[in-house]
Amino acid sequence: MRMIDIIEKKRDGLELTKEEIYFAINGYTKGEIPDYQMSALAMAIYFQDMTTEERVHLTKAMVESGDQVDLSAIDGVKVDKHSTGGVGDTTTLVLAPLVASVGVPIAKMSGRGLGHTGGTVDKLESIQGFQVEIDSKEFIELVNKNKIAVVGQSGNLTPADKKLYALRDVTATVDSIPLIASSIMSKKIASGADAIVLDVKTGSGAFMKELEDAKELAHAMVQIGNGAGRKTVAVISDMNQPLGFAVGNALEVKEAIDTLKGEGPEDLYELCLTLGSRMVYLGKQAESIEQAREKLEEAIRSGKAIEKFKTFVAAQGGDPSVVEYPSKLPTASYTFEVKAKEDGVVSQIIADEIGIAASLLGAGRLTKESKIDLAVGLVLNKKIGDSVQKGESLVTIHSNREDVSEVVEKIENAYTISDQKVEKHPLIYEVIDD
Amino acid sequence: MRMIDIIEKKRDGLELTKEEIYFAINGYTKGEIPDYQMSALAMAIYFQDMTTEERVHLTKAMVESGDQVDLSAIDGVKVDKHSTGGVGDTTTLVLAPLVASVGVPIAKMSGRGLGHTGGTVDKLESIQGFQVEIDSKEFIELVNKNKIAVVGQSGNLTPADKKLYALRDVTATVDSIPLIASSIMSKKIASGADAIVLDVKTGSGAFMKELEDAKELAHAMVQIGNGAGRKTVAVISDMNQPLGFAVGNALEVKEAIDTLKGEGPEDLYELCLTLGSRMVYLGKQAESIEQAREKLEEAIRSGKAIEKFKTFVAAQGGDPSVVEYPSKLPTASYTFEVKAKEDGVVSQIIADEIGIAASLLGAGRLTKESKIDLAVGLVLNKKIGDSVQKGESLVTIHSNREDVSEVVEKIENAYTISDQKVEKHPLIYEVIDD
Repeated sequence: MRMIDIIEKKRDGLELTKEEIYFAINGYTKGEIPDYQMSALAMAIYFQDMTTEERVHLTKAMVESGDQVDLSAIDGVKVDKHSTGGVGDTTTLVLAPLVASVGVPIAKMSGRGLGHTGGTVDKLESIQGFQVEIDSKEFIELVNKNKIAVVGQSGNLTPADKKLYALRDVTATVDSIPLIASSIMSKKIASGADAIVLDVKTGSGAFMKELEDAKELAHAMVQIGNGAGRKTVAVISDMNQPLGFAVGNALEVKEAIDTLKGEGPEDLYELCLTLGSRMVYLGKQAESIEQAREKLEEAIRSGKAIEKFKTFVAAQGGDPSVVEYPSKLPTASYTFEVKAKEDGVVSQIIADEIGIAASLLGAGRLTKESKIDLAVGLVLNKKIGDSVQKGESLVTIHSNREDVSEVVEKIENAYTISDQKVEKHPLIYEVIDD
Repeated sequence: MRMIDIIEKKRDGLELTKEEIYFAINGYTKGEIPDYQMSALAMAIYFQDMTTEERVHLTKAMVESGDQVDLSAIDGVKVDKHSTGGVGDTTTLVLAPLVASVGVPIAKMSGRGLGHTGGTVDKLESIQGFQVEIDSKEFIELVNKNKIAVVGQSGNLTPADKKLYALRDVTATVDSIPLIASSIMSKKIASGADAIVLDVKTGSGAFMKELEDAKELAHAMVQIGNGAGRKTVAVISDMNQPLGFAVGNALEVKEAIDTLKGEGPEDLYELCLTLGSRMVYLGKQAESIEQAREKLEEAIRSGKAIEKFKTFVAAQGGDPSVVEYPSKLPTASYTFEVKAKEDGVVSQIIADEIGIAASLLGAGRLTKESKIDLAVGLVLNKKIGDSVQKGESLVTIHSNREDVSEVVEKIENAYTISDQKVEKHPLIYEVIDD
């Protein structure tokens, strides 16, 4: 088999066989196939697409290129959740304890990541004492005992995907549905879950700006997951404005606690129930989506959900009293209000600009080596559709620096206030399961 | 400027600017842009094509990437000729002295090349004493004195093209009209001619199997040539069977001598007059194509053409008496006849198979280091449309080895004899000048 024939075949729009895809991915991972052939193949895939069969083989080849997490010692159906990313997305912090509280085992491997704010691991570390560096034996014991544990990423998962992603990033081959879908799914599948619920964001603050593109990506990922033997469902949700109110690490932990108590922002609550009910259903802890939702609502109402959060935090060395005393979370030295300059209704909040504003405060990581300031961030006091009067606060800035002029400018650019009636975007566009 | 933005722009079907194309080509030549980005760009060009403007910039960028031959010290309009390659293509050996004999300066830079037989330089070296290693001063003096000289390729011409071609060869990006056309034209333009006549072959023995593809390539090259300020014309000619009768180095020299005397194969003669009359017209030695053709016919009839060949050979150290005594050319030890197994009419001669047969005898070079056997080759005694009787010779094999069973097999595979009426392909399909 020769790589050039594989490139030519794909270039000509033909379907690659399983053997050809494995040959390309294995050879590339081992360094036997050079970057310049792989980038030509990636560009040919960009133009000629891949069938579902090809996407499944590509994903499995990447999964098999490295270590795979073995969760078989955990009882029950292990359900994982993945979000395609956005601004102020606190869903994992809410969903993990919420879903675990009704009996679904959550064995979450999570990263720190680059972005406007930190990853789930960073956020959890704003709770004093919280420890994600646990070994795999302890991790599995914790999940069997409490139905929930979070561990930092370790091992050599999907090295083929890491290498291919770095190449795509410099060869204009990132924006390809089969390549995006197989990249995401390979990481999820290698992480060992039996079932996967995907939160695919769409809108100005999402990677997929257009609903049609988000749907295409969602179908692609669901088909790959199911094709690889993992029951997969995708929810397409809105990211035309940040989710919830908080953007920042400790601020989002506080918001997650509020939501688990039933006192959080409406959109975050609703999205968590939509995603969570699919997780509970796939985890076989309910006989229907409706029953799953009722169980989750009941867990919040009864306090079971927030109790699970405390158990989870305590089991990993954290101080569970943050639930009662959120002031124990890191707190910024200064707060500033960004005030409306006119009366009207908020018609737009550019999520990316809000993300950049949080990042300017130090909430995010620009390089792998950057240090995150867990205390800083933003709280949105007004969201799309809210009425506002001149002088009212749109956003509260939590900062450890006195000069926030650049941050204020970003926030002012992000908000549009209109004197017209404002059409709100739906929160959930569609649930895709095939 | 960033290469990734250039790749993305082409990927999205937009037109690259001159600056972007020069940035990519210069950076790649210097090694500042890596192979993996250039192969992604090549694949994007494969799918999105290039406008005429872009093709001209690409060609000029490759021309300017290295040395350029300066022919300005030669009087008159210097005309060059290029063939896209085929089997038994003896046109250069005929055309150079023929056209020079009516006053057009031919300053030919020629290579050895890889292929079924050697390049023009190899063929000429089958004349005892012939020397192509002359310095540029002597080369120019010879052309000014005799209107003709041939020199081996030297200098660092179009390094960008060499590097890009090697990359395309392993990334399935060879078959792209803008990339093929710019590669050929960059070499021709860097060689310094004022005007260029292209012989674009089509048919089973050509790179362009389909007439439509050959036309597209011809238009592309003519537009690039004219766009770069070199008057360019293309003739599309048939390569469904080998041109002329001879396939081999010394055998082709003998055939060229015959043709210059007016005693050569009809198809070779006709193609040389078609190409030659365009060269004479572009070289401003005739006021019309018709007049140019009459001049060339007269040069052959009067003996001026063969005299020019002798002058040319003698001037470069060769023995001109080969014209009268062709047995002075290298001769193979054995000849074998491949005979017809049935009566009928020759309906097909697969040119590629004939080429491979010649190559098996040692007429061609497989790697740059291979040594060519100048004596060996094939003479076709029957061509498409010829009647043949069982037992008559189809092909004479000239070999230095006694065992030619493999060669015979190739030739037998190449020939088809039919009992039906046979439609002959036209020799010249079209002349393209825009």
